[in-house]
Amino acid sequence: MTTTELADGVDLGTAETPTGVMIVDGGELVGDGDALYSADPVSGERVKPGYPSASPEQVADVCAQAAAAFAEYRSAPAERRAGFLDAIADRLDDARDALVDRAHRETALPRPRLTGEVGRTSGQLRLFASELRAGFWQGARVDPAIPDRAPAPRSDIRQRRIGIGPVAVFGASNFPLAFSTAGGDTASALAAGCPVVVKAHPAHLGTAELVGRAVAAAAASTGMPRGVFAQIVGGVDVGQALVGDPHIRAVGFTGSRRGGLALAATAAARGVPIPVYAEMSSINPVVLLPNTLAADGARLGTEFAASMTLGAGQFCTNPGLVIAVDGPGLDEFVAAATDAVAGDEGATMLTTGIADAYRAGGDELAARAGVVQLAVGTAPATAAGAAARLFRVDADRFAADPGLQSEVFGATSLLVVCPDLDRLRATLDVLEGQLTATVHASPEDHGIVGRLLPALEDIAGRLIVNGWPTGVEVGHAIVHGGPFPATTDTRSTSVGSAAIERFLRPVAYQDVPAELLPTDISDPAPAGIHRRLDGRTTEPASEGKEEQA
Amino acid sequence: MTTTELADGVDLGTAETPTGVMIVDGGELVGDGDALYSADPVSGERVKPGYPSASPEQVADVCAQAAAAFAEYRSAPAERRAGFLDAIADRLDDARDALVDRAHRETALPRPRLTGEVGRTSGQLRLFASELRAGFWQGARVDPAIPDRAPAPRSDIRQRRIGIGPVAVFGASNFPLAFSTAGGDTASALAAGCPVVVKAHPAHLGTAELVGRAVAAAAASTGMPRGVFAQIVGGVDVGQALVGDPHIRAVGFTGSRRGGLALAATAAARGVPIPVYAEMSSINPVVLLPNTLAADGARLGTEFAASMTLGAGQFCTNPGLVIAVDGPGLDEFVAAATDAVAGDEGATMLTTGIADAYRAGGDELAARAGVVQLAVGTAPATAAGAAARLFRVDADRFAADPGLQSEVFGATSLLVVCPDLDRLRATLDVLEGQLTATVHASPEDHGIVGRLLPALEDIAGRLIVNGWPTGVEVGHAIVHGGPFPATTDTRSTSVGSAAIERFLRPVAYQDVPAELLPTDISDPAPAGIHRRLDGRTTEPASEGKEEQA
Repeated sequence: MTTTELADGVDLGTAETPTGVMIVDGGELVGDGDALYSADPVSGERVKPGYPSASPEQVADVCAQAAAAFAEYRSAPAERRAGFLDAIADRLDDARDALVDRAHRETALPRPRLTGEVGRTSGQLRLFASELRAGFWQGARVDPAIPDRAPAPRSDIRQRRIGIGPVAVFGASNFPLAFSTAGGDTASALAAGCPVVVKAHPAHLGTAELVGRAVAAAAASTGMPRGVFAQIVGGVDVGQALVGDPHIRAVGFTGSRRGGLALAATAAARGVPIPVYAEMSSINPVVLLPNTLAADGARLGTEFAASMTLGAGQFCTNPGLVIAVDGPGLDEFVAAATDAVAGDEGATMLTTGIADAYRAGGDELAARAGVVQLAVGTAPATAAGAAARLFRVDADRFAADPGLQSEVFGATSLLVVCPDLDRLRATLDVLEGQLTATVHASPEDHGIVGRLLPALEDIAGRLIVNGWPTGVEVGHAIVHGGPFPATTDTRSTSVGSAAIERFLRPVAYQDVPAELLPTDISDPAPAGIHRRLDGRTTEPASEGKEEQA
Repeated sequence: MTTTELADGVDLGTAETPTGVMIVDGGELVGDGDALYSADPVSGERVKPGYPSASPEQVADVCAQAAAAFAEYRSAPAERRAGFLDAIADRLDDARDALVDRAHRETALPRPRLTGEVGRTSGQLRLFASELRAGFWQGARVDPAIPDRAPAPRSDIRQRRIGIGPVAVFGASNFPLAFSTAGGDTASALAAGCPVVVKAHPAHLGTAELVGRAVAAAAASTGMPRGVFAQIVGGVDVGQALVGDPHIRAVGFTGSRRGGLALAATAAARGVPIPVYAEMSSINPVVLLPNTLAADGARLGTEFAASMTLGAGQFCTNPGLVIAVDGPGLDEFVAAATDAVAGDEGATMLTTGIADAYRAGGDELAARAGVVQLAVGTAPATAAGAAARLFRVDADRFAADPGLQSEVFGATSLLVVCPDLDRLRATLDVLEGQLTATVHASPEDHGIVGRLLPALEDIAGRLIVNGWPTGVEVGHAIVHGGPFPATTDTRSTSVGSAAIERFLRPVAYQDVPAELLPTDISDPAPAGIHRRLDGRTTEPASEGKEEQA
C-alpha cells in the first residue's frame, strides 16, 4: 500500500477542498474499489469528488496498522494523548468555515447549526483531554501486601485500566461532525488509548475527509504513531469487513437499528467476539401530567412542536411519542401542537434516502388501526424535502400494537391519549428501551412523578423534568445511552466524559517489582492520579498520609 | 405455584440435611420435571435426595417473581442491602460444618479446602457489603445548572448507577461455595441491587440447597422482597430457558467454553439481547526467564508441580502452560517437575464426567505431533480418580498447532521449550486470551520482563511476577477476568469489589426537582457518598466546600 505522507502541520484553512481520498497510515490513500459519491440533498445531485472505496486488502492493511500503533499509543503518557486531542480540536476550530461550507452542502443542515456543531466537536475533544488529565480514568486501585497475614500472606495487587485495542467507528448521518469522523466515539476511544479506524459516512464524504485530514495532521504534529487514526470509505461490505477484522477490538456505531444489529451480529460471530456500542433507535417518550397540562396545555403544545420539528426531527433524542391523560388542557395542547405542525414549513432532510424512509414510515403509521393524523406541515420543494406530521392514537390501541413504537426518523410524532393515570402507567410498561424519558409536571404532580420515576429509570438512560429531550449536554454527568433498542449496551454512555470507560479494560499486577510497575500505580502515588488504597479513597499524591475512611 | 414459606431465622445447623427442593419465592418448591441427582465422585454412586427439575412454567414464574422484586430491592438503601449480604455471610459461617460435610460428599474436595472456601464465600459477601457502604458504587456525578451560560443555559444534570435487573447465575463445579449459589456472581449482583436466579450446579445439588436456604432465610430476616433470590434445578434446557426469559437482564457463568458460548448465543439471539459474563477457558501461561531459571531451576520445577497439581488442577487459574528458553537450569526444572508429577498421588476429581474429559483431553494432547509425555502420576482407585500429567513440546510445534492451547481442565500441563528469547516472545503472540500470565524473573531478567509486559497485559487480566497463578485474592484491586476465551467480556472482573460494576447501568437526571431526586445525588451531598462535581472530585459530605482540582 502506498500512501502520501501529510506534511507536519498541514493547513486545513478555508481554501482546502476534499480530493476523494482515504486517510491511511498518516497519509492519503485512494481506494481500490468502486467510487462512492455523497449527494446534495437540495438538488439530489452528486457532489464531487468521487471516493473510491477500500478493497478487502486495504481494510485488512489499515486494521493491521492500527494494531501496530496500539502498543506505542496506549503506553504514551496521558498528557501526550491529551495534547493530541487538544491539537485535533484546535485544527477543527481553525478549519471551521471550510467544514461548515462542505457539511452544509452535503447535509443541508443550516450553517448556524453546523457552526455550533464544530464547537461542540472541538469542545468534546477538549473534554476528553481534560478527563485524561483528571486522573480518574485509570481506575487505579492498590491493595498492598500483608506479609504477616494468617493463614497466608497477602500479595501486593494493583489494578489499572488500559485501552481495549483498535476501535472501529461508524459515524452518524445526522451529526456530520459531533458524531462522525472526530466525534464522540473517536474522541473517547483515542482518549482511552485505542487507535481508531473510521468508516466515513457515505452521506458526507467530503466533510469526513476534511476532518480526517485534521486528525492525521494533529497526530503528526504531536508525534503520535501513524496508525493511530485512519479513515476508510465503503459500503456495507466494507463496514462488515472492518468489524470482522481480527485486529479490531470494539465498535462504536450511531445509526439505524438494522445497521446496528447487523454489525452486532458480525461482532458476536467472530472467532474472538468483541463489544459493540451501537446507538440505534429511540422514540423518547414525553409524559404530560394532569396538573401541568391543565395549567399550561397551549404552551406545552407549542414547545413540543418546536422540539419535534427542530432540525427536521433528525435527532436521536427527537420526541416521537407524547403520552397524556385525557382531561383539562389536552385540547389546548393538541390545538397548539396541531397549529404549529400544520404551519411548519418543513426542511430538507440529510439524504433523499432518509427522506424517502421518513415519508414511508409516516405513511405506515397513518395506515395502522386507530391512528389519526392530526396535522401535516408543508415540505420544501427539494430532493430531500419533508413535512412534519403529528398523529394521535388511544392508549389501548397503542398497547396492542408494538408496531406503533417503530421509530420514524424525522419530524413525525404520535400522541397517545390515556383515559386515566393507571393507563398512562401501563403505557410506560409496554415501552421499549429509550435514550430519554421526559415528564412535564407542576409541583402538584410531583407525587405522580415519584411513582413513575422508577419505571422511567428502567427504560431510559436520561430522565428530564419540564424540558425537552432534544439537546444533549456534553459534560461529566450526561448519559446518552439506554436499554435496547436505544443501544446494544445499556452499561455505558456515548456522550460525556464517562464514555472513556467503554474502551478500557482492567488489568491487575500481582507482586510486580516496583521498577516494572506502570507509573499510574507505582509508589509513591503520582501527582493527580486518584486511587483507592485498600478500597478507601486517597487524595491525589497524598496516598498513605491522608487516607479517608 | 405453591411454595412453603421458610420461617424467619431458619436454622441451618449441622442437623440440616437437603430435601430435594428448589428455593422459590422465599420458600421451598418441588420441581415438576425429571429428577436430577448429584453423585459421590469417590464411589460414583448417586447421592440422595433426587432434585426434580423445573418445568418451563416454573422457570417463567421464578423470573417473573425476580422482576417483581426488582423495583423494591434496587430502591432499598445501600445499607439495607449490605445488611442482607452480611446476614447471608453470618448464616453461611454458622452452617459451616454442614456445608463442608455435604460439599465434601458431593465434590470430593478436601474438608480443609472446603472449610476455607466457606470463609472465602462469607468474606466475599462482607466485602460487597463494605463496598456498598463505601459510597463509590453509585458513580455519582453532579454537573450543576449554569442558568446564565451563553449561548444557552446549562441544565442541572446528575448521574448515578442503578441495578441492571434480575441476573441469572450459573455456579461452578470447582467452587461449590465461592463461585456457586452464594458465590461471587450472586454477591455482586445482589450488591448492585439485582435479584438473582441461580441454576444450581448439578454436581452439588445438596450443597446448593443448603446455601440457598441460608440466602432465603437471610432475605426473610432482613425484610427483603421474597423474589430477591431463587434457585432452580435443571439441565441444559432449564439453563437455556432461564437465559432466554425476558425478565432476565444479565448472566453470570463460570464453566466450560462450550457452555459459556451456548449461553452467550442464546443471550445474543433474544428479542432484547443481554450481557453475559462467562468465565470459560484459560491455560494461564507461566514464563520462566533465563537468569532465574539458571539460578533456581529445581526450586521452580518443584513449585510449578505443586501449583499445577493443587486441588487436582481444578482451578480456572491452573498453570496449564510453561514457556521457557532452553539453557542453564532448564534440565533442573524439568527434572524436578517430572519427579514431582511422577510422584504425585493424584486426586478424585469433581465428577466422573470431568475425570473422563480430563483423561481424554490428556490423551488428545499426548497424541498430537511433537508432544512428549514427561511424567504421569498415579491416580487413586476412585470413580473420578485422575493422575497428573506433564508434557513437553518445542516452540515451533506449539506455534503451528492451535490445538495445543485447548484447556485440559485438571492437573495436566505443557512445557513449551523455546530456542531463544525471540521465539519466547513470538510464542506469547500466538496465545489466546487468559485469566493470568505469570513471569518468573530474577533482577537480571527485569529488562526482558519490561519488554514482555505490554504483550502480557494484552492477553491477560492479571499479571504475576515470581508467584503462581493458583490462589485468587478477594480484594479491591484483583482482576479475575481477561480477553476471550478466558471470558466473554474483558471489560470486567468476576472477583473483587469491582465486580459490582458488571450489574450496574448509568442513568442521568436532568432538571429533576430536588424533592424527587434519589438521595445519592441530592443536595446537600449525603455523608459517605463520593461524587464528582463538574468532573472534579469532592470528599464525601463536603461537596462545594473542599473541592479538589
